[in-house]
Amino acid sequence: MNAVQICEGSLELREVPVPEPGPGEALVRVLRAGICNTDLEIVKGYAGFSGTLGHEFVGVVEEVNGADQGWKGSRVVGEINLGCHGADCSWCGAGMDRHCPNRTVLGIQDKDGCMAEYLTLPVRNLLPVPDHLDEDTAVFVEPLAAGFEILEQLHLQPTHRVAILGDGKLGLLINRALRFSPAILTHVGKHPRKLERARGPGIRTLLLDDAAGEQGFDVVVEATGSATGFETALGMVKPRGTLVLKSTVADSVPLDMTLVVVNEITVLGSRCGRFEPALRALSDGLEVTSLIQDRFPLERALDAFQVAGTRGSLKVLLDVT
Amino acid sequence: MNAVQICEGSLELREVPVPEPGPGEALVRVLRAGICNTDLEIVKGYAGFSGTLGHEFVGVVEEVNGADQGWKGSRVVGEINLGCHGADCSWCGAGMDRHCPNRTVLGIQDKDGCMAEYLTLPVRNLLPVPDHLDEDTAVFVEPLAAGFEILEQLHLQPTHRVAILGDGKLGLLINRALRFSPAILTHVGKHPRKLERARGPGIRTLLLDDAAGEQGFDVVVEATGSATGFETALGMVKPRGTLVLKSTVADSVPLDMTLVVVNEITVLGSRCGRFEPALRALSDGLEVTSLIQDRFPLERALDAFQVAGTRGSLKVLLDVT
Repeated sequence: MNAVQICEGSLELREVPVPEPGPGEALVRVLRAGICNTDLEIVKGYAGFSGTLGHEFVGVVEEVNGADQGWKGSRVVGEINLGCHGADCSWCGAGMDRHCPNRTVLGIQDKDGCMAEYLTLPVRNLLPVPDHLDEDTAVFVEPLAAGFEILEQLHLQPTHRVAILGDGKLGLLINRALRFSPAILTHVGKHPRKLERARGPGIRTLLLDDAAGEQGFDVVVEATGSATGFETALGMVKPRGTLVLKSTVADSVPLDMTLVVVNEITVLGSRCGRFEPALRALSDGLEVTSLIQDRFPLERALDAFQVAGTRGSLKVLLDVT
Repeated sequence: MNAVQICEGSLELREVPVPEPGPGEALVRVLRAGICNTDLEIVKGYAGFSGTLGHEFVGVVEEVNGADQGWKGSRVVGEINLGCHGADCSWCGAGMDRHCPNRTVLGIQDKDGCMAEYLTLPVRNLLPVPDHLDEDTAVFVEPLAAGFEILEQLHLQPTHRVAILGDGKLGLLINRALRFSPAILTHVGKHPRKLERARGPGIRTLLLDDAAGEQGFDVVVEATGSATGFETALGMVKPRGTLVLKSTVADSVPLDMTLVVVNEITVLGSRCGRFEPALRALSDGLEVTSLIQDRFPLERALDAFQVAGTRGSLKVLLDVT
């Protein structure tokens, strides 16, 4: 089968064997996959991954190795973290596979990803996609879940002024997740065309160049995907406020943490979220397909990566099978 | 009077006029002052301060400009943040002068400090020192309060494994404050001689060189005073744990924030604390004078700074009047 692999630092479309599902695993035929900024960072060296890329997908279960044969034929999305589920693992025991120290991660850490005709995942990682949800929408479950994660970590209150910084794919999905909070939202971005997609009832949008005087936010969500976004965010959050850090980037930049101490800022790292709330929101009609910029067949994955890596690009999809 | 001033980046003992207390202010004759790492950082350029240094003191009220004449003759310590107390300042209105955006700070920001024969402070900033408390103990109220601040910001629970990183003055005072929590304490430092002063019932002490396998702490308090302490602390905190950041340093260093995101760490900046709990703990017998390394008369302040700036130095006091 075809697979988009990162191999000794170079991105290639390669012919590889169809994977064999291990015990408790399903073999999933991939229908649609999405390119995430994390994929672009992995190509630059982030996480030191090699193998098949990709962790955003919708697929169909073709085979199950084990008792759960009822999944065969189901259209599914899949939680990307694979916990060890060892008897003594307190993380897996508490349903926090996402933080299991021995986890592998689909297309990110020691587990081949979804930019291929087939992938394997434990059945416990799968969620069925309701019939009325098309693939172009359902493929957003994983990145949208990362937005809902903020609502699990942080109690956003009706009086909170919240700024979302960054109008890329992640920022715009966080925007959509935070609409499910009572907070007062301001979305700050660099690109008028993308910022348009941040608009919604009661949501203020603002170009970064016009945001010089914007400060004193209770919460600032840093989703610029740039290592320098941290400093911008820090300038906008009020003393004792919270800076939610979402960007994972390959570079280290010099950071002055003095303001964090002096203003007693809480910096909250935030990564993947549970799939259920995201899937529910999409099932209930949350609109995300306006974030799709372009689509390519799997065979043209390298072109797709080129477009996805262009400054200001939104979501690029791969039509797999 | 004599005053230790920082002037165009150089530290000098200068003859200056005795300050005049403004409305609502007291004139305080300084008895004892302490040298803090922040003072050493200010000498290196932190905070861009010029004027009389110093923010840790015990003194006697000599004059009051205003109605509160009852303070005259009282031995006092004093809260170092001077809020604006404007009618529309929500910070001052909420008793959070410490975060007032228009505040001045004794010996740190636009307000002459305590390394002089006299200082002025608003009467509202003063707390009386109980008679039985000697000056060598009471001078620790301000830095000890910075330790108690952690207990105000963070709910430390009986099952929490907490590591304190750094066996300098600040780390050792945090150690003493956290003894008032039910958490399980480990103190990690570089200097056996100083680490001895971290020992107490149930407190484990550990040299950094022996701490390679130490990780998975619920909370790590970074009090190394070094910009590189952040990374060490990050390696010790468990996923979804809390890293309390206490060091204010003049330098920026390249920081990789990826682990903060991936492990969903909460980085909690922590600065000054309320004086009351620290004063109460010292009044009730908390021992701190073993942290005194050396003492000098005010006239020998430059020698005192040299000793305080020596690697591994503990608290250096100035005997003022």
